[in-house]
Amino acid sequence: MEMLSTLEGKYGEEGDKLLFRILNSGDVLSKLKSQNEGLPASDITEKGLRYDLTVPFARYVVMHQNEIAFPFKRFQIQPVWRADRPQKGRYREFYQCDADVIGSNSLLNEVELIQIIDDVFSALRINVSIKINNRKILSGFAEVIGEADKIVDLTVAIDKLDKIGIEKVKIELKEKGFSEKAINGIEKILEVKGDNNQTVEKLNHLLLNSETGKKGIAEINRMLDLLNNCKLQSANCELDLSLARGLNYYTGAIIEVKVNDKRSTFTSSVCGGGRYDDLTGIFGLPDVSGVGISFGADRIYDVLDEINGFPDFSNVSTKILFVNFGEAEEKYCMKLVKQLRDDGINSELYPDQSKMKKQMGYADDKKIPFVAMVGSEEMKSGEISIKNMSTGEQSKVTLSELLRILK
Amino acid sequence: MEMLSTLEGKYGEEGDKLLFRILNSGDVLSKLKSQNEGLPASDITEKGLRYDLTVPFARYVVMHQNEIAFPFKRFQIQPVWRADRPQKGRYREFYQCDADVIGSNSLLNEVELIQIIDDVFSALRINVSIKINNRKILSGFAEVIGEADKIVDLTVAIDKLDKIGIEKVKIELKEKGFSEKAINGIEKILEVKGDNNQTVEKLNHLLLNSETGKKGIAEINRMLDLLNNCKLQSANCELDLSLARGLNYYTGAIIEVKVNDKRSTFTSSVCGGGRYDDLTGIFGLPDVSGVGISFGADRIYDVLDEINGFPDFSNVSTKILFVNFGEAEEKYCMKLVKQLRDDGINSELYPDQSKMKKQMGYADDKKIPFVAMVGSEEMKSGEISIKNMSTGEQSKVTLSELLRILK
Repeated sequence: MEMLSTLEGKYGEEGDKLLFRILNSGDVLSKLKSQNEGLPASDITEKGLRYDLTVPFARYVVMHQNEIAFPFKRFQIQPVWRADRPQKGRYREFYQCDADVIGSNSLLNEVELIQIIDDVFSALRINVSIKINNRKILSGFAEVIGEADKIVDLTVAIDKLDKIGIEKVKIELKEKGFSEKAINGIEKILEVKGDNNQTVEKLNHLLLNSETGKKGIAEINRMLDLLNNCKLQSANCELDLSLARGLNYYTGAIIEVKVNDKRSTFTSSVCGGGRYDDLTGIFGLPDVSGVGISFGADRIYDVLDEINGFPDFSNVSTKILFVNFGEAEEKYCMKLVKQLRDDGINSELYPDQSKMKKQMGYADDKKIPFVAMVGSEEMKSGEISIKNMSTGEQSKVTLSELLRILK
Repeated sequence: MEMLSTLEGKYGEEGDKLLFRILNSGDVLSKLKSQNEGLPASDITEKGLRYDLTVPFARYVVMHQNEIAFPFKRFQIQPVWRADRPQKGRYREFYQCDADVIGSNSLLNEVELIQIIDDVFSALRINVSIKINNRKILSGFAEVIGEADKIVDLTVAIDKLDKIGIEKVKIELKEKGFSEKAINGIEKILEVKGDNNQTVEKLNHLLLNSETGKKGIAEINRMLDLLNNCKLQSANCELDLSLARGLNYYTGAIIEVKVNDKRSTFTSSVCGGGRYDDLTGIFGLPDVSGVGISFGADRIYDVLDEINGFPDFSNVSTKILFVNFGEAEEKYCMKLVKQLRDDGINSELYPDQSKMKKQMGYADDKKIPFVAMVGSEEMKSGEISIKNMSTGEQSKVTLSELLRILK
């Protein structure tokens, strides 16, 4: 949890509404009932639940600025909360996995974060597109269409392009007071298609008269150059001029990751981020630039679920279950289980002296590939009777043979 | 978060006071101000933050009873919250690490959980005592002193022995209506000292007339026998008759772990648990027995801090920092860093083209053992100049030599 003063006003008006607020300790409820008016809000609630990890991180950096070695790289995996209506891909409590570099202006950081994204989704065997853009390019657009002062309205509208389509974006821009000519200019820009080189080529023409825009193009060029220098493993990285992201604090690179798999119905992003030049400024530490990304763990889980991407459960869980025949066998098997575990093999001894059928059912339910049966005979001979649960094959083996089979 | 109806009434009166309650979504605050009376509490707050992981786990088991293969073993690492006054070892937000087995009466589970405790603290190199007791033994005490109906008062009082001493415990018992004779009986029991065998010996006499007590002794004997069967690595396990733990839901084994290190000032427990025969009963699933333990991650962190138990930072973090000399070198070094990383070696390229002094200072601050300098000369020869930061020694090596050094 954080102080509400840390959270409020950082995520826009909409974000403030989505903050979960915590009732102050003590008997606030009955105080509320008896002394009903004039109780200031902070007497009722002054703490809230994290909305994301970035703002609490900025708060942390400012509080610990004298102990931190900059550039400061950190990752953080924690739950966050949003008082939203739950729906597909949208939870009230979910885990974010953030990686940020703060205190460095270098575009190397953007590139390394993109490499991390590629590493993560390659390891999870999820095919993704990493879309990139640059806030300076968006500012350039606003300049060249003569609406530089409406950059926030412009990004908010463009951000919705995927969901509502170009016609509704145009209507929204009109409502916000954009001129007909400006809207047509934006439409032309958003129609730009092609590979990254072609897009950059067109940008060079489009943003010829915007210094900010040209800076954005230079940043994109450097990033693409460095990304070419060390090829990504499986993700493809594409420049997408319609990528805006609602968050108003981005000042440079903007990054968003979409799943590229027909088996997935997910259209929301599974990771996003960007550069924020002055996030710590609101907490009193100006001029510290940072760049970060945030993975949505629950959405990634959902995608893996949809595309059947989880590894075979029998590969990751218990490898062998020892049947429990009674007190003496239990003691004997405990030692065998310990030896297997010490050798890194996930093993279980069924804890209760239940009927054979129940114990085998447990092995079935948990998809345990081998069952060991050690009764008085095996205790005498020192061997272990095992059954391969998929083939049904039974055999008697020594402990060292068993180790070899299970490894 | 959980529904308040799940949490309330599960942790005693004191626990209810320590629950953090979340304001309902929507504009509850202004609703409160305008429509001040008669607003039911659930209109203001109906969700709360987890107080522990056990009750939410019980709720989960009941909700998913038809999908779960019993005995069900699960571990869970998540934050919990208590609206307590923060102090040493007591946080308002902290992480618990729980392991439970539910749906099995076997004492093997107790023993395996104790093995887990031993594994964890052995791996962390923290010397601990695992204290065990049994609620049935405590019930036996209450029986033989003729106060069977006051078992809750008895355990609450005994639980404080460590903190307040025997005299104050006796005063508390007197206030609760225990007879003089009963109090003297309890004092005699709490004075029992000796190794586990001696304690069991004395218990056999003390609890001769309590069936419940004798069941408790039998359980303790079986546990000690199984623990003897597979020796613990480093922890010692001792029967402590004064171990009661306040939680009223324990019905069998009680477990508590204390740090055994003079450098630590920690007197609170770092892990605790026990058997609860009917935790899911309150959610409508009776007769399911469970046993579990809970590690306090933050307290363990504090102990490691106190006893200087964290591994040398240079062993776990970046092994080598590449100095950033400029754009061309940056591109060249990026590839080297990628090769090292692919080989599992934590490596960094300083992201900015800062002054040498600043870059070396970063290596110092982060205790990075090696610094690599690759300028135009090295780029030509294919070698890498490295500096050992602790000896100051400099040399030129090939990439494969560097890999060997860093491995």
